[in-house]
Order: sequence, then structure tokens, then C-alpha cells
Amino acid sequence: MMLNKESISLWFQSLQSDIINQLEAADGRGKFIYDVWQRLEGGGGKSSVIEQGHIIEKGGVNYSAVYGSTPEFLIKNNPSLKGSQFYATGVSIVLHPKNPMMPIIHMNVRYFEAGENVYWFGGGIDLTPHYVDIDDAQLFHQTLKQACLLHDEQYYDKFKQWADDYFYIPHREETRGIGGIFFDHLNGKDEEDKNKLFDFVKAIGNTFAPIYVHLMKKNSELPYGEQEKQWQNVRRGRYVEFNLVYDKGTKFGLETNGRTESILMSLPPIAAWHYNYQTSENSRESTTLSLLKKGIDWVNKNNTIEKN
Amino acid sequence: MMLNKESISLWFQSLQSDIINQLEAADGRGKFIYDVWQRLEGGGGKSSVIEQGHIIEKGGVNYSAVYGSTPEFLIKNNPSLKGSQFYATGVSIVLHPKNPMMPIIHMNVRYFEAGENVYWFGGGIDLTPHYVDIDDAQLFHQTLKQACLLHDEQYYDKFKQWADDYFYIPHREETRGIGGIFFDHLNGKDEEDKNKLFDFVKAIGNTFAPIYVHLMKKNSELPYGEQEKQWQNVRRGRYVEFNLVYDKGTKFGLETNGRTESILMSLPPIAAWHYNYQTSENSRESTTLSLLKKGIDWVNKNNTIEKN
Repeated sequence: MMLNKESISLWFQSLQSDIINQLEAADGRGKFIYDVWQRLEGGGGKSSVIEQGHIIEKGGVNYSAVYGSTPEFLIKNNPSLKGSQFYATGVSIVLHPKNPMMPIIHMNVRYFEAGENVYWFGGGIDLTPHYVDIDDAQLFHQTLKQACLLHDEQYYDKFKQWADDYFYIPHREETRGIGGIFFDHLNGKDEEDKNKLFDFVKAIGNTFAPIYVHLMKKNSELPYGEQEKQWQNVRRGRYVEFNLVYDKGTKFGLETNGRTESILMSLPPIAAWHYNYQTSENSRESTTLSLLKKGIDWVNKNNTIEKN
Repeated sequence: MMLNKESISLWFQSLQSDIINQLEAADGRGKFIYDVWQRLEGGGGKSSVIEQGHIIEKGGVNYSAVYGSTPEFLIKNNPSLKGSQFYATGVSIVLHPKNPMMPIIHMNVRYFEAGENVYWFGGGIDLTPHYVDIDDAQLFHQTLKQACLLHDEQYYDKFKQWADDYFYIPHREETRGIGGIFFDHLNGKDEEDKNKLFDFVKAIGNTFAPIYVHLMKKNSELPYGEQEKQWQNVRRGRYVEFNLVYDKGTKFGLETNGRTESILMSLPPIAAWHYNYQTSENSRESTTLSLLKKGIDWVNKNNTIEKN
């Protein structure tokens, strides 16, 4: 079957609905509200946001499909695109849970095309625990590795490293969380390649709901106190720092006059900054910090370190 | 008298002490803590931070003087600086008050030189009320205008407009607050010019403590409730957005491996993001929003609009 932008976009729409349904069922109380918006220059989207759910404190599952004249910075890299039209569609998700023992999660899957011959898929999924749970981290990476392996033997290693490098906060010398996978500019030489790449992107998109619903069921009732809430707010502050200073999607959106409320749905409900915040030695907070590093082999982590 | 970098730097140090003393006296409870730090490549600074004061919830009054090989991006603009040394010194302040009826304030005054013949002064001071009080805004701008007028007839108008343009959040179509003044790259042709410019910078530096101590005395006991605290957190979120996305000092500091905790002392103790937050019609929040615009003639504001 010929794979065109309309069918890709339709699949992203169905992914959005599916994830929303599964999250609402798992949350039990929270309902997503919808904002359908139009882009002056062409296209638009459907933002769906949840606030004050039972488990999810704030989050968004956004779909968009925008098009128009190919922007100048892309023509610079590829002069053949001069005068062409572009089309970009995807789903973007960030969820901030209430319970600090639950991780923040992010996923983005997207498709871009311009002119007659240029296209690529991109995306990523990464987990940002306030407190790293080794078992959860291992299961998360195993699930991603499994999804990758069915499509290409090299994907997981390559895209896991890409995530380590991308979801990094240089001024803190910390990774944002335990990483995941990140990929961009995936394309191929023929229709078969394109279908295969789309199958891969679909597989990644389909990992999202099972992974997070599992974590919601497993961790959302774990006990916590004031100290854990305070630490959660500190980690949420780091999330803000990453998204506003380094995240390319956020930067691109803000610079190209995107819909601000849809772009910044990724920011947490609340965040805190203390001057020179220090964790106590051997605390769960300092253990977490020691694990916010690039290059950790999470899939085999249980075999290589003592568990806390 | 020959004005050299050491005497400018010394004056900035004394300004830091003076402002700290006056703020501690006005706060009554909060004490600044000090961190003296060294920069590997040359120089260092003294950060002083206050947290959980009676009036000031979080803030910093930082001094630094750093030097070394002139960085590449400056040599690009001025090839004669190749192989030269630079020296940069200044004071940087942000204060976040506890009471939402008090404004956030920021000031920066700085001196830069490189090689034998290149130098400039820069700086700015701006006020970010959570709720705009027209009288306070007018007095703030009148004080700055007065300080400017004693040095140059054109400074206030020029630097006020520069502040309107600089302290602006494009993706929100809002100014950060009611502005103030902003100036950069001020230099002159001889020693007399340099002394005059330094006198101007000193005059601006010296406006800070009287202005803010006045606002502390006038507004820090004003009553407020939950709604005002919530709105304060929303406005603090906007402050975070400006500082992390647009502020050149913050960007420069983070990109050049500056001391992260000193740079990010500008961030509020806590901040909130709600999806698509809307103010009620005719509320004090919506009145404030309507005043976060460029080009308002604050000095004559009382004569031109009805007061709320």
C-alpha cells in the first residue's frame, strides 16, 4: 500500500485517542480536555490536557499536522526545497504524576516531508523518575530494546546513546532522567523502506500506554511525605531547565510562533529552586543523582550493581 | 584620576556590601549567606544569597570579576582583540519577595574591557510586579529618569525603550514587568568620558537600595490570600520562561561554563504552570496583564489613565 502523509497523520490521530483512553481508564478520575486549533499558515492540531487527575497531576497528549511553505532554514540545508511545501505531523506527550515515587514520562513520534522526495521520521521516549527504581528502569529499557529489535538490530544501542546525549543538562552535568531512545531523520530509498520505518515508529508509539499504565498501577499508591514532594519539585525544576534551555522541539516551536500553550504543556504544575540544593549522603536522593549519568547499561543494570 | 579596572571592581564590591546591608536591615530577619568562588580560567566572585527572609523569600546579590583570554566570539566582532586579555566585573541582583503585592526586582551593572583600547559599561534595572500598582510604577520610573537626567538628557528615553524591548517575552506577547532601563556597550573617546559613564553606572547602582527598601516598607505587609499566591506563582513561571529562554546573561553564563548556582539564583523559589490560565474579566490580574505592554509612558501614567 502506498504510504502517504494522510494515512500517517490518521494513524497519529488514532494513537492520540488510544493513549488518552488508556490513561483515563488507568487514572480513574482525570479527564482530558480538548483544544482544537488552527494554524494561520496551514494545518493545526488537537491538544488534549489533563489536570488534577487522581494519578496524573498535569499532562498533555497533543496531536498536530501542519503544512505550508518549507521554512528557510530547511532550504539552506537543501536548496532543492526552494519553493516547495512541507508537511509535519506527530504526537507529543508529557505526563507529570502527583506521586513523587512515579516517574515523569515523555514521548514524541513525528513525520516530516517536503517537496517530492524528502521525508523523515523522528521521535523518542524517555523516563524521568524523581527517584530511580532500578527494576522499573530496567523494564522500561528492556521494553524499548524489544520493540527496537523487531525492526533493526542496531536501533536500540544507537538510539539509546542518542537519548543519553540528547536528554542531557550540561550546566547540571546530569541526564534529565534514565533516558530511553531518541531518533531523527530516519528515511530510506524506497516505498518498502518507508513502510518499515513507519512500522517501527508505530511500534514505539504503541509501547507508551502499556509502559506508563503499568507504572501507574505499580507505583501510584506508594507512600511519600514532605521530603519526597520537595525533591519532586527540585527535579521538576530541572525538567523546566532542560525544556526551556535545550529542548529543540520547544525552541523551534517558540521561535516559529507555534501555539505556546500546546508547546509549554510539557512544564510541570509546580517547580522549585533552592540555592545550591544538596542531597544527604547515602540518601535515596543522592542515589538517584548518582544514576543520572550517560552510558548506564540499564538493560543489564540489575546484574552489574547492588540494588538500593 | 585614572579610572582602572581595579577601582571599578572595588566599587562594585562596595555596592554589593552596601545593598546587602540595607536589604538585611529592611528585611529584619533574613541574612545573606556567602559563597566565594574561583574561576579556573581566572578570577571569581562572591555570591550572596538570601532564603526565607521575613520579606524576601529568595534572592541573590552577586559580585564577580573574571578575566582571561578574550573569548572567540568577541574576536570575531573585533579581530584586533586576537591574543588579548579580557576583564569583566559587575553586580547582579534578583529578589523574589514573599508577598505577592510586592514586585520582583532585578538589577545588573557591569564593566567589560579587552586589550588596550576596548571597554564598555552595561546594565539595567527593571521591576516585575505580580500586581501592577500605578503609583509604584510611576515612582520607579521617575526615580530612574531623574538619575538618568543628571547624566544625559537622552538616556532615560533611550534606555527605557531598550528595556521595553529587552525584557519582553515574545511567545507570551507580554513584557516581563513594567520595565525600567537597559543599556549596553556604553563607551567614550577619552578618560573624561569614561569617568562620566562610570558616574552614571554608579548613580544607577545607587538607586537600587532606596527604591526597593521603599517598596519593602510600603507593601510588604499588604494583605493577600490564596488567589494572590496562585497568581504570583503564575507570574514567577513567566519570569522563569524569560530568564531561561531569552535572557542573554543567563544564556551566556550557561554556555560558557559559568557557575550555575550563581547564574540561576535569579529563578524563583517556586513557580507554577497551569494549562491555558485565564484571568477573570475586570480582575486585578487582568488589569495587570493589560499593563504588561511595551511603550507605556509610566512617568506620566497617572495623568493619562484612570487609576484602578
